[in-house]
Amino acid sequence: MKIQFTKMHGAGNDYIYVNTLKYPVANPETLSIAWSRPHFGIGSDGLVLIGPSEKADFSMRIFNADGSEAMMCGNASRCIGKYVYEHGLTQHTEITLETLSGIKTLHLHVAEGKVNTVTVDMEQPLLENKQQLATASGSMMDGEIKADGQTFKGTFVCMGNPHFVIFVPDVMQIPLTEIGPKLEHHPLFPERCNIEFAQIREDGSIRMRVWERGSGITLACGTGACATAVAASVTGRTGRSSDIEMDGGTLHIEWTADNRILMTGPATTVFDGEITI
Amino acid sequence: MKIQFTKMHGAGNDYIYVNTLKYPVANPETLSIAWSRPHFGIGSDGLVLIGPSEKADFSMRIFNADGSEAMMCGNASRCIGKYVYEHGLTQHTEITLETLSGIKTLHLHVAEGKVNTVTVDMEQPLLENKQQLATASGSMMDGEIKADGQTFKGTFVCMGNPHFVIFVPDVMQIPLTEIGPKLEHHPLFPERCNIEFAQIREDGSIRMRVWERGSGITLACGTGACATAVAASVTGRTGRSSDIEMDGGTLHIEWTADNRILMTGPATTVFDGEITI
Repeated sequence: MKIQFTKMHGAGNDYIYVNTLKYPVANPETLSIAWSRPHFGIGSDGLVLIGPSEKADFSMRIFNADGSEAMMCGNASRCIGKYVYEHGLTQHTEITLETLSGIKTLHLHVAEGKVNTVTVDMEQPLLENKQQLATASGSMMDGEIKADGQTFKGTFVCMGNPHFVIFVPDVMQIPLTEIGPKLEHHPLFPERCNIEFAQIREDGSIRMRVWERGSGITLACGTGACATAVAASVTGRTGRSSDIEMDGGTLHIEWTADNRILMTGPATTVFDGEITI
Repeated sequence: MKIQFTKMHGAGNDYIYVNTLKYPVANPETLSIAWSRPHFGIGSDGLVLIGPSEKADFSMRIFNADGSEAMMCGNASRCIGKYVYEHGLTQHTEITLETLSGIKTLHLHVAEGKVNTVTVDMEQPLLENKQQLATASGSMMDGEIKADGQTFKGTFVCMGNPHFVIFVPDVMQIPLTEIGPKLEHHPLFPERCNIEFAQIREDGSIRMRVWERGSGITLACGTGACATAVAASVTGRTGRSSDIEMDGGTLHIEWTADNRILMTGPATTVFDGEITI
């Protein structure tokens, strides 16, 4: 049986996208493992299934390269927006997407029939979460944390998942491989934590590098970019919107007056393929 | 402009194959770099161009992921055999291929219209080469070499490129990442050297792990498998033919009575794709 797929990436997060309306996939866990392998497979961060939904325009299921199912991925949801529009599955530029962490809204920015960027409504950030942060208040703003004999100052932001954002003068000087795992597993974080090191540039943009909980250094992290923008704004370092540059690309984050986070970024088609299973 | 390609691998060496008769490629170095990248590109060990030849049935050019052009790759040449037959470019099962290291002959093993394995004539091995081995005779058979405070016994084989094959009781116990670079750069090897650690199993097959000159640990090495079979035979450990299992797959090597090395192994199509440049 032949299955058509499209390889896409959003800020360097690359997934294999399959339209299950046309190509039903019975065993996505197994396929995600086999297809994600370099050398022997297609090579990717995982597999994304686009399907029908009773509650939204489309559904999205996302599987990691190890076969586990993820809740949601902001970078992947942007690619779905591009996919459904450019494959003619919709003519709308406002799309709802059913995910394991609820219904997400996408806004497509279209020029000459092509989707260049997509805005995802990432919903409300929380500055307080006692389950994720072991302080009396469950919050922390430029608060001190010690690891590896050093003291850092950071801000806690919950975007569903926990983030700890540390502003430094030069992010490229941070030995992320050594310090990342120590902060991730710090006793302050009962559920462990995503760690962002961020630097405010002269032009007001932010350069950020991320240590993702359970994954280590990655090219980009959508919720991490959102958390960084919130931390920068709430500590008075920036206004309500920022460009966050990561190793894999740049995302524009806007914190709206009604306390929602809008994340805008690129969605790129790398190639179309056909594989026999 | 859209270019169709096929991703194939031979024992884990994966390349992007393009038929330049249909899709002329003006800048293969640039494309090989861009396309080989994980996340942002197709992801591969490099790019292989299949073209016409005045001296042979087809020509083969092979570019590494860094854009440099390689002389030849046995694992890739098998995939070319599969490609040209299954894409209907030839109906022959004996094919000649013009490469930067001369004209190579492929023999395709076909069943039900599919090429399962391919035999490549890897030509003559040399047990002596004074440019590549700094001993008085330019040869070495189970000779001693010291590195990292340890003494190893190995055999030198030239398959065009230099190889040093060390037989050990258990290849999985060898710390290849540490010892590989030290042996590669040993003063015995003026042009540096590919290093193979090999273990003879009870069934007579050989388990081999390779440290490739300039590349480090790789999944498989065609000339390394040939050199290992020659070293095993010439030191009396095996007969004239062996199965060599590497991390990426198994190759069957035969040392013929007229002193040629025939390498037989799999060629696998992973998927077909189309990319816009």
